[in-house]
Amino acid sequence: MSILVVGSVALDIVETPFARREEALGGAASYFSTAASLYSQVNLVAVVGSDFPREHLEFWRSRPINLSGLQIQPGETFRWVARYHMDMNARDTLDTRLGVYAGFHPVIPVEYLESSLLFLANIQPELQMEVLEQVPNARLTVLDTMELWIMTARPMLTEVIKKVDVLLMSEEEIRQYTNQASILVGVRQLLAMGLKYVIVKQGSYGALLFGADGTYFSAPSYPLEEVIDPTGAGDAFAGGLLGYLSTVQPSSDRGYAIEDIKCGVVHGNIIGSFVCEDFSIDRLRGLMMTDVATRYETLVDCSHFDPHWRYRTKVAVS
Amino acid sequence: MSILVVGSVALDIVETPFARREEALGGAASYFSTAASLYSQVNLVAVVGSDFPREHLEFWRSRPINLSGLQIQPGETFRWVARYHMDMNARDTLDTRLGVYAGFHPVIPVEYLESSLLFLANIQPELQMEVLEQVPNARLTVLDTMELWIMTARPMLTEVIKKVDVLLMSEEEIRQYTNQASILVGVRQLLAMGLKYVIVKQGSYGALLFGADGTYFSAPSYPLEEVIDPTGAGDAFAGGLLGYLSTVQPSSDRGYAIEDIKCGVVHGNIIGSFVCEDFSIDRLRGLMMTDVATRYETLVDCSHFDPHWRYRTKVAVS
Repeated sequence: MSILVVGSVALDIVETPFARREEALGGAASYFSTAASLYSQVNLVAVVGSDFPREHLEFWRSRPINLSGLQIQPGETFRWVARYHMDMNARDTLDTRLGVYAGFHPVIPVEYLESSLLFLANIQPELQMEVLEQVPNARLTVLDTMELWIMTARPMLTEVIKKVDVLLMSEEEIRQYTNQASILVGVRQLLAMGLKYVIVKQGSYGALLFGADGTYFSAPSYPLEEVIDPTGAGDAFAGGLLGYLSTVQPSSDRGYAIEDIKCGVVHGNIIGSFVCEDFSIDRLRGLMMTDVATRYETLVDCSHFDPHWRYRTKVAVS
Repeated sequence: MSILVVGSVALDIVETPFARREEALGGAASYFSTAASLYSQVNLVAVVGSDFPREHLEFWRSRPINLSGLQIQPGETFRWVARYHMDMNARDTLDTRLGVYAGFHPVIPVEYLESSLLFLANIQPELQMEVLEQVPNARLTVLDTMELWIMTARPMLTEVIKKVDVLLMSEEEIRQYTNQASILVGVRQLLAMGLKYVIVKQGSYGALLFGADGTYFSAPSYPLEEVIDPTGAGDAFAGGLLGYLSTVQPSSDRGYAIEDIKCGVVHGNIIGSFVCEDFSIDRLRGLMMTDVATRYETLVDCSHFDPHWRYRTKVAVS
């Protein structure tokens, strides 16, 4: 099963309290594609400028990533400049230069149309809608967004949310979009729009999965010795989630078994944890499935506890 | 097994984005005692002024809480005034009026000396040290502290940390005390001081348990529909932890089995979650063990996932 992703490819300047990297390969689609290609064939749709380093294309060609939907336009590649706080769960965007991205419209190659899984990475909701119109039959569609679109493109974002299966949002984005202080109440409002699942991204705290069927699952985060650069962790999370799901059979027409969705969220956390261990996609370059398996075992160990309620009252003992 | 707690009893003014409560029974020892008394006998050491409402004493007397170590001094009870942010993981202390607490020195009644579990709630480290000198033989000692003491009483706090078994700290406190950006590195530094366990309090994100034996455990938080007032959640967490441990047998002279410590942390999260559902200790007043058991089952359901690594590569499938 192949995975289609539409989103940004960028060159980033990222500064943390401890280090700085310029001209780093970034953008949501870059992180997602590299992550998901650990599992399956990825079909990439994005735009870059004529300045985009050839070495990045060569790296992607070395993996199961189809680049026939990657437009190369005269002009500059999208640039993003950001600085992280000491608590790297917080960052400021210092500059955004759209370049060729300003005139981007996604065109889905015919050979991509069989993709069974679709990730709409964080781009303008109107572009996400253009993708949904071109790819109406994906088995599972996952949507990411950001504060900017909640503020500036809310009606179109709402239309997109109504058409997808899974929504990824941070707690702050849920509060902004739903205007609810309670995450639980906000999530319920989102599920009522027709979503099957809402996944709450919590940065270094892991992720929460809420299902329209009442599912609630809290996936532990992998404890990192050192966070070098958290950029792209959310996109790599989506890559791990959809990557894992691309390797399992849907249980029926109704979709994936909930146990598979849970495992997908755990894979997402694992792949997201790896991304934070270096700048750009660098930690993913040599990553092996055995590395993922080792972290999976650690997460099982660190999150499972005695499932049997045991409490002996004094009365019962005496 | 009885539990000894030394800490503050206060009257609070608490303001959240949605409500406000004046003259609320507060203070770490109040939350802890009420929580831990769900499980076992609690021996309370604290000070209140002559203005302290008699009804609170009567409530505690209705539970297995021994008040013979509660000093009633002429003057005003400790007052604390705070306001929460929209994200209730953050708050500002607006005012602190020490009252009779300014001259407090803990005196441990002889009848308390058999207490097997000791909680040193958040008070000045020199007072915590006075307690440790009077109660040298507790089976397990748990220490809480705050930013103020890290800044103003660091040397004495360090001496206290060296003498206890378990330290509770928030991520920010760990960064401040250890001067490490990485929580993992900071925790390791703390464990090297002789602690058996460090528990990282993460507010609405749950708690992490780190052991000197290499244990790492991520306890899920219980998802709350509505947070009314998170004040005291950390103290109630400690009450759930020590309360649960008071009901199990230590595995040996070396202490509790790690599975029991993990269950204790889960109990801590559960009791902490209840406290947030109302102002002051009000949600704990009528709480039953069956309520705790229901949340325990929910947390098992929401945090356990397929422990068997399954990933089928295309190569393996074909």
